[in-house]
Amino acid sequence: MDEKANLAEKLALLDAPYSPAIVGYLNDYKLQIVKVLGEFVWHTHNETDDFFLVLSGRLTIQLRDRDIVLGPGEVFVVPRGVEHCPKADEETHVLLIEPRETRNTGDVESELTVEPADL
Amino acid sequence: MDEKANLAEKLALLDAPYSPAIVGYLNDYKLQIVKVLGEFVWHTHNETDDFFLVLSGRLTIQLRDRDIVLGPGEVFVVPRGVEHCPKADEETHVLLIEPRETRNTGDVESELTVEPADL
Repeated sequence: MDEKANLAEKLALLDAPYSPAIVGYLNDYKLQIVKVLGEFVWHTHNETDDFFLVLSGRLTIQLRDRDIVLGPGEVFVVPRGVEHCPKADEETHVLLIEPRETRNTGDVESELTVEPADL
Repeated sequence: MDEKANLAEKLALLDAPYSPAIVGYLNDYKLQIVKVLGEFVWHTHNETDDFFLVLSGRLTIQLRDRDIVLGPGEVFVVPRGVEHCPKADEETHVLLIEPRETRNTGDVESELTVEPADL
């Protein structure tokens, strides 16, 4: 990384919810920001854990047996192999960290499947 | 991770600056919080990049050719092999992410070399 990334400034460049963008890399991991609004899609990453940090708003990570509700400054790591579905009732800003090759919808092919933009 | 981590609440459990604590793991990476105050020690991680996210306060990451100054919500990744020395003039709270086996002082053995606590 040559320059720092101000996450709020980078988030202001994003339009639609669930369109992640890469702000940097940590070894073979991508650092992504994403706006969350509404419900995503149930999916599983069988090959990796999945890191979520809420920057603003309120994120619910639905698991099959319970919900994890995150406010600003709260972190949750979904363990590999655990099915989950994020949702938010208000626009919520999230930092995601996962290996570079990780697909946003995991094992599911969906209209929400996208490649992240590179900011 | 079984439960979410509220980073501010976890930071309130820490006493001294430069005594990192682990709040969770992402695959083979540790998620660490640390209070920064004063100057750390110049060091290099030859085997890994080093992720810094400022949660509160103001962190200066000194590099040999320039300073990176981070406020809340700002991220910088020190590339592997790049000598650096963090410092802060006020108490600053940071999220650090690096491989589990990474030593806090990198290639340098120092009185600041510590194993992180496990919260």
